[in-house]
Amino acid sequence: VSWKGAPEVSSKGWSFKPRGRLQFDAARISRPAGVADTGLGFSNELRRAYLGVQGTMPGGFGYRIDIDFAPSSPEFQEAFIDYTHGRTTITAGQHNGFQGLEELTSDVNTSFMERAAFTDAFGFERRLGISAQYRGDVLLLQGGVFTDNIADLSDDANNSYGFDGRIVFSPKMGGANLHLGASAHYRDTGGTGAGTRYRQRPQLHPTDVRFLATPALQVTSETSYGLELATVAGPFHAAAEAHWMRVSVAGAADPTFFGGYIEGGWLLTGESRGYRDGAFDRIKPANPVSDGGIGAFALNVRYDYLDLSDAGIIGGRQQGFLAALIWKPTDYVLFALNGGRLLFDDAALAGTGGDRDYGATVVGLRSQIDF
Amino acid sequence: VSWKGAPEVSSKGWSFKPRGRLQFDAARISRPAGVADTGLGFSNELRRAYLGVQGTMPGGFGYRIDIDFAPSSPEFQEAFIDYTHGRTTITAGQHNGFQGLEELTSDVNTSFMERAAFTDAFGFERRLGISAQYRGDVLLLQGGVFTDNIADLSDDANNSYGFDGRIVFSPKMGGANLHLGASAHYRDTGGTGAGTRYRQRPQLHPTDVRFLATPALQVTSETSYGLELATVAGPFHAAAEAHWMRVSVAGAADPTFFGGYIEGGWLLTGESRGYRDGAFDRIKPANPVSDGGIGAFALNVRYDYLDLSDAGIIGGRQQGFLAALIWKPTDYVLFALNGGRLLFDDAALAGTGGDRDYGATVVGLRSQIDF
Amino acid sequence: VSWKGAPEVSSKGWSFKPRGRLQFDAARISRPAGVADTGLGFSNELRRAYLGVQGTMPGGFGYRIDIDFAPSSPEFQEAFIDYTHGRTTITAGQHNGFQGLEELTSDVNTSFMERAAFTDAFGFERRLGISAQYRGDVLLLQGGVFTDNIADLSDDANNSYGFDGRIVFSPKMGGANLHLGASAHYRDTGGTGAGTRYRQRPQLHPTDVRFLATPALQVTSETSYGLELATVAGPFHAAAEAHWMRVSVAGAADPTFFGGYIEGGWLLTGESRGYRDGAFDRIKPANPVSDGGIGAFALNVRYDYLDLSDAGIIGGRQQGFLAALIWKPTDYVLFALNGGRLLFDDAALAGTGGDRDYGATVVGLRSQIDF
Repeated sequence: VSWKGAPEVSSKGWSFKPRGRLQFDAARISRPAGVADTGLGFSNELRRAYLGVQGTMPGGFGYRIDIDFAPSSPEFQEAFIDYTHGRTTITAGQHNGFQGLEELTSDVNTSFMERAAFTDAFGFERRLGISAQYRGDVLLLQGGVFTDNIADLSDDANNSYGFDGRIVFSPKMGGANLHLGASAHYRDTGGTGAGTRYRQRPQLHPTDVRFLATPALQVTSETSYGLELATVAGPFHAAAEAHWMRVSVAGAADPTFFGGYIEGGWLLTGESRGYRDGAFDRIKPANPVSDGGIGAFALNVRYDYLDLSDAGIIGGRQQGFLAALIWKPTDYVLFALNGGRLLFDDAALAGTGGDRDYGATVVGLRSQIDF
Repeated sequence: VSWKGAPEVSSKGWSFKPRGRLQFDAARISRPAGVADTGLGFSNELRRAYLGVQGTMPGGFGYRIDIDFAPSSPEFQEAFIDYTHGRTTITAGQHNGFQGLEELTSDVNTSFMERAAFTDAFGFERRLGISAQYRGDVLLLQGGVFTDNIADLSDDANNSYGFDGRIVFSPKMGGANLHLGASAHYRDTGGTGAGTRYRQRPQLHPTDVRFLATPALQVTSETSYGLELATVAGPFHAAAEAHWMRVSVAGAADPTFFGGYIEGGWLLTGESRGYRDGAFDRIKPANPVSDGGIGAFALNVRYDYLDLSDAGIIGGRQQGFLAALIWKPTDYVLFALNGGRLLFDDAALAGTGGDRDYGATVVGLRSQIDF
Repeated sequence: VSWKGAPEVSSKGWSFKPRGRLQFDAARISRPAGVADTGLGFSNELRRAYLGVQGTMPGGFGYRIDIDFAPSSPEFQEAFIDYTHGRTTITAGQHNGFQGLEELTSDVNTSFMERAAFTDAFGFERRLGISAQYRGDVLLLQGGVFTDNIADLSDDANNSYGFDGRIVFSPKMGGANLHLGASAHYRDTGGTGAGTRYRQRPQLHPTDVRFLATPALQVTSETSYGLELATVAGPFHAAAEAHWMRVSVAGAADPTFFGGYIEGGWLLTGESRGYRDGAFDRIKPANPVSDGGIGAFALNVRYDYLDLSDAGIIGGRQQGFLAALIWKPTDYVLFALNGGRLLFDDAALAGTGGDRDYGATVVGLRSQIDF
């Protein structure tokens, strides 16, 4: 038995660990003049409540199940079987499609309460599929073929599929960890009829307001590319990402949407931000409160950009100026305070006199435990 | 590893325990003359099916998640993070608002299959919030601020909030444990539009019939007060509670509803009813069947009262004369037989010739295991 | 701690084990000429995703909870409390009604990806009830009284109930295990109004197409009988089952539907198919990949028959010619390839020119892990 939040029991190739996380969020979104939406102002919610298990079996097999009970109907996050031989892992089931550094970093370890605006806007999600990854010393190769997520596959007419690939080069240079990544993605929607809206919340989740949103588009396929650059050097880290998504629309011009961010962070208490397998990992306080210390404090700032307007489609443009203060009293407990100013052009919600170019100030608070 | 129904693994400030409970109920509600409702007569159900986890981490942190899978959509019961330092505990997340002795006693340890009629009628439930409690030797202080329960917070326009406080004095006098409690509660509904009905089932849950029910009221706030008195003396216990809820209704007079009960119980096999932290606790048989004994037998009787008519609102009045026989073959297995006669005035369902003053006889059976 | 997929912790009458399974299925159903249904062709899904627990407590008590999270709302599979004394077990809660060899064999151990066509067509499911079973050396006796499944009991007007009994004689003859079983079932529907359709998918589950389906019938009761015959002899096994269901329809003639199958199987790698307590059990590879072996390979063939036409009701008739190749690299991991040809008479879906007599070719693939 070893403790990783919850106990992991293991013996001769066998292992088993319960998994879980709780995130309670409160948010305040300022009301741009003239915007009438009851979801602005204060709101609060259980952001995520995962319960799950993971384990391994002799012979190289493993599994992971994470179910999020926070939505009104439970939603599968990870649900897969994998097989590992040396540096290579084959995974079958629902898992992430190697979308990029920000999306692949676990939400218990992200710099901000919510990920960069482009990730949700571009519909990143876990899907059923088969993938392979090779973990070299400095090279990570990932590729897979996917259909759709478990909930959407309950429609037996769903014939969507796609391919995803990613390569990460992560050498050590001097005392710094470097991360250079690139990914490419193609998805055929199978011609599902209802239409797709690309849209995003204002950087905090308790509200359901979307200042940015395209109309419903008859999407036939999506092709996207991402570039990633990051470094961890002692208590500092920096990261930047850019992602282009070209959307093929039936009977109309094909827009290319774009999003990205650039961020810097400082662990005031001197620890280094964790990094592993092409994504950021857990911050572990050098002096946790359990040893009489004050835990770890981190300060992050980010410029976030998302443009959902192109080729005649007006989905709006958002610039976010964000700051985060994180306190981790111990490895598995986190409190975060987020603040920011968002500037919108061509927002989906009209303000005074039809004005669609305005700003909003957002403040958020998270309490989190995971195991 | 220690066994508390399920195994609790613990080591150096870490602990983890799976949680669960199953309650299978069958009920028979007699049909008052002329009342047409298909839910009367026999019915049966899975009353509760909780799965969850609880744990602690070094530094004083802990968590608990209980999800009830018996409803058609899973419902969160407890879902919180807490921090304990000495006699003080801070809790953040969904938990109970210190409503009173009956509500705070776990449903695996209550005297009857269902709690006193006023608890559901007054809408007692767990809500998201932050609270503090101090556990002294004979004094318990509890107070918190809450928003709403997790499911209702999925509406981002929900701006309800409230305050709850409770004080319990529990000295030992001679061989007896005494319990004196008082609580006060205020809730601003945030002006949610749909209206609130105060209502209650006939002391058994498999049926969905409500003999008592107010019309939907446009509630702006609720203010309530409770008094609690109880004692455990050897194999005997007695308990009484009274709760007044004043409801502010938009554009109408404000009714005050009232409920309470008085009960006595006898553990025929000589054990004492458990009591801890301002609530009743588990009955532990002195001679469980696992040691060749017969387990514990308890007999409880109760007079229950609920009045939902005031200030021109006719919600009805119920008097319940109830008896319960409980058999606990071991600490974590329970069978209960409940019977009673309910008398209604101004019931919500009309009987023969429009009669609304009648009675019903109820019989219920529960099989339960928990861990 | 012992490992049965997941760790089982046990001590002095106490035990506890997490439970789970994942089945990912892909299927291709050929399109009979002229049949227009978007669910034909390729489809894939998470077939089952169970999480649950089981345990025992001193004194002979035990419990099991299995929840399937694959459907859009979680569904209870097993949810019961039991008590075992010597060879006799009393079970209260939701469990199977002793429907027959195929239904009682766990879906992780069946010969084919889906069970015989009659099992779903006849509405076999777990229900709330109380049962007793006696396990002798060669004799198994099972009987119980049931109401309905947990989800359907949320309707408090549901007054259905039924009785189920089964007897199995399983002597060893020479080196072979013999299995002779018979079961009888009666169910009063309590006169629920919506009507019942008897129907079935084409042997694979990712599609929701039903080639066979009766109209909605106003069923008042169901009476059914089953016969079972099976043997395991070294690496070979054979099994056959027949089930008759007489349906009482309000105001119409009472049809008797019939289904059954006959199958043979060969474990190419020499193991014997598991058998225990009147059902097939797990195949355990003699040389699992964890020991450098190739695991176990099994080949099964089956003729499956289902007739839903009788007494003026035209539900259709299906003959299935099925083959399965199973690979078990270790005890708890399985991959299955299924193929078959189905022949329909009087199908529910019209083909070219109204033709209802045609065939379909089906191919399926499953990846499975359980614990």
